[in-house]
Amino acid sequence: MTLSQPTGTEQTGLRVTVGNVTRDLPTVRVGSVGRVPLVEFLGDSEFTNAAAEAMLPLIPEGTEVLLTVVTNALPLAHEISDRAGVPYVVARKKRRTYMQSPLIQDVPSMTMGVAETLWLDGPHAERLRGKRVLVVQDVIASGGTAQALGRFVERSGGTLVGYLAAFKQGDSTLPLTYLQELPRSV
Amino acid sequence: MTLSQPTGTEQTGLRVTVGNVTRDLPTVRVGSVGRVPLVEFLGDSEFTNAAAEAMLPLIPEGTEVLLTVVTNALPLAHEISDRAGVPYVVARKKRRTYMQSPLIQDVPSMTMGVAETLWLDGPHAERLRGKRVLVVQDVIASGGTAQALGRFVERSGGTLVGYLAAFKQGDSTLPLTYLQELPRSV
Repeated sequence: MTLSQPTGTEQTGLRVTVGNVTRDLPTVRVGSVGRVPLVEFLGDSEFTNAAAEAMLPLIPEGTEVLLTVVTNALPLAHEISDRAGVPYVVARKKRRTYMQSPLIQDVPSMTMGVAETLWLDGPHAERLRGKRVLVVQDVIASGGTAQALGRFVERSGGTLVGYLAAFKQGDSTLPLTYLQELPRSV
Repeated sequence: MTLSQPTGTEQTGLRVTVGNVTRDLPTVRVGSVGRVPLVEFLGDSEFTNAAAEAMLPLIPEGTEVLLTVVTNALPLAHEISDRAGVPYVVARKKRRTYMQSPLIQDVPSMTMGVAETLWLDGPHAERLRGKRVLVVQDVIASGGTAQALGRFVERSGGTLVGYLAAFKQGDSTLPLTYLQELPRSV
């Protein structure tokens, strides 16, 4: 708990400003690490749009495709894709019955406490082949998910041009580009 | 297989036009029902935007909040919310560690062949209380998920004003509003 944190409430948390949108992120107690500020783009189109707009200048020149993963980054990736005029591809966290020859990539998840598996449908992997691909996420913490997405790019025959996140919140050592760093706990 | 369907290919499917955007939906063989046209808004911001724009006139007057559910409808709900200036709330299909006093609602899923459980975080349920709420989805098939979302509205103290989907694809008997009906199989 620092001086900048209001005390005695579950909902008031860390104040963040992106563009001209300010949000008080709620904080939640997660395990033993204390209270973790929670970024919520789902259900907040104004905050999502502000982040997308601010991230546009951070897209490396020559980027041809964005790659993201369900769930929380979806409106953000959609909005960046729309504003940048660069298509996006989505990896899943579950096998879907309709997938054809999907690529499979394991990722250790510190947040969930269990290993996750990412799935990239075969026709979507095709869209990465021979392209310059930027991995895009809402929040990058350990970087495990980002690295798994990077592996999808390589395995699909694309070229990984970087990792872009709205927020860095953790000790990832990946060469990230991001808008702001958030404390892992407050 | 009908005369309007090309034969001998896995990828070519049903042609759909929304606004000035046309897509050939891929069809996938699912169980014993034949080839099912697959709507994919994820990874297609142009198609998403066209659907959102076309759905705006179908929003009942006086709607104060939209309620949707992860995953495939997220960019669509974001875009409708943004264009209509009406906030949206997202139910989840998994319990998240950060949820506070979530509402829980079971839904039978014909697509997945198993029952699903929807979770609505307590603070999000608060956003529905006393509001006129429209359930929004990408595709409504059996209507089971839509009904579960409608129950969330009632249990949160909101008023359900209707069900809106981009596509109807199944034999739901709910009073739906939608852009187009898709065949369950081709």
